[in-house]
Amino acid sequence: MTKKVAVILSGCGVYDGAEIHESVLTLLRLNQRGAQVQCFAPNIDQMHVINHLTGEEMPETRNVLVESARIARGEVKDLADADVDHFDALVVPGGFGAAKNLSNFATQGAACTVNPQLLALAEAFAEAGKPVGLICISPALAAKIYGPGVTCTIGTDEETAKAIDKMGGTHEPCPVNDIVEDTARKLVSTPAYMSAKSIGEAAEGINKLVDRVLELATP
Amino acid sequence: MTKKVAVILSGCGVYDGAEIHESVLTLLRLNQRGAQVQCFAPNIDQMHVINHLTGEEMPETRNVLVESARIARGEVKDLADADVDHFDALVVPGGFGAAKNLSNFATQGAACTVNPQLLALAEAFAEAGKPVGLICISPALAAKIYGPGVTCTIGTDEETAKAIDKMGGTHEPCPVNDIVEDTARKLVSTPAYMSAKSIGEAAEGINKLVDRVLELATP
Repeated sequence: MTKKVAVILSGCGVYDGAEIHESVLTLLRLNQRGAQVQCFAPNIDQMHVINHLTGEEMPETRNVLVESARIARGEVKDLADADVDHFDALVVPGGFGAAKNLSNFATQGAACTVNPQLLALAEAFAEAGKPVGLICISPALAAKIYGPGVTCTIGTDEETAKAIDKMGGTHEPCPVNDIVEDTARKLVSTPAYMSAKSIGEAAEGINKLVDRVLELATP
Repeated sequence: MTKKVAVILSGCGVYDGAEIHESVLTLLRLNQRGAQVQCFAPNIDQMHVINHLTGEEMPETRNVLVESARIARGEVKDLADADVDHFDALVVPGGFGAAKNLSNFATQGAACTVNPQLLALAEAFAEAGKPVGLICISPALAAKIYGPGVTCTIGTDEETAKAIDKMGGTHEPCPVNDIVEDTARKLVSTPAYMSAKSIGEAAEGINKLVDRVLELATP
């Protein structure tokens, strides 16, 4: 049977949204492995808009769902309509969107809160024993979803690792081409562009993550 | 020696810019094959901005170079600064940006004109005998670059194929997972999302195109 996977996008661009390479690499591997994919994103304004050429903030407002539709070629639904019962697994690519739009980790660190729609959905996957894949910076949300004791990786960035530990998680260092698995919780994470120096490096870890999440998924 | 490839982006999103999957798949394969890549985009306003969720035009202005920087993670240069002498090959992913921002093919069809910076650059690659890869809708520009008699493909779309023939090109039908090569001109093209029903299908043709362009490139 086909495995059904929900992918959560957080905009379109590494500095204010979903990291584009990570999102596309995730969609590519899921498709190549025969999974059926539905993208979701919250119907909210981005925290801000960054000019990706200069790194400066732009005096604009953009909507996370609308911008996520660029990556999804229009095939994205409101996160409010995501139902755990319709899916076998959940994957969240990274990019600052995970820390700015899906949560406020970028500004609040260990004191962050997670978008309530995403939190409820991810908790439902956890409670149902369905696998979750968190990529790049999105494992920073793991302790908020699973509670204390959850093991994950964001690679080797010390500041982010400390924040994860402070939230009750257990950060495990990991090379860019590998994954960390919390076996009891069926949570898989990989550093991707937290560590990657190239798109090829990001792909190695993301491919492993997608493959493992699909192995753990029961249709 | 490392082969150096210029990739031309035309914004960020299939309906008003560079097709994101095609662009990322191109960057991925080039990296996996050991090529050195520099992205370029014209420093001009997009023809318009499309809401990718609804398909409707938005009352906004976006700059092609600035939006392309989202795909390139900031690593994109002004097309005006691209010099054929610094590169061994040129690749242009598709998306409506190729037909709206790099040319006006979307509105003018066979009577289209090509952005003068892109035209001059592509003509320089042609004159230097350096290979060029055109993906998706961007082969619609081939006859403007190479003149009459050039062979290319956009897949099987009859209207676009007729427009190419009208411009003096020779359109050759091609399945999504394959390429068409004009051997004399070192021009390689593939349909990608002109035909692809999935990202995996697009990847098959793009991987072949990148591999062949790199084979033809002489560092």
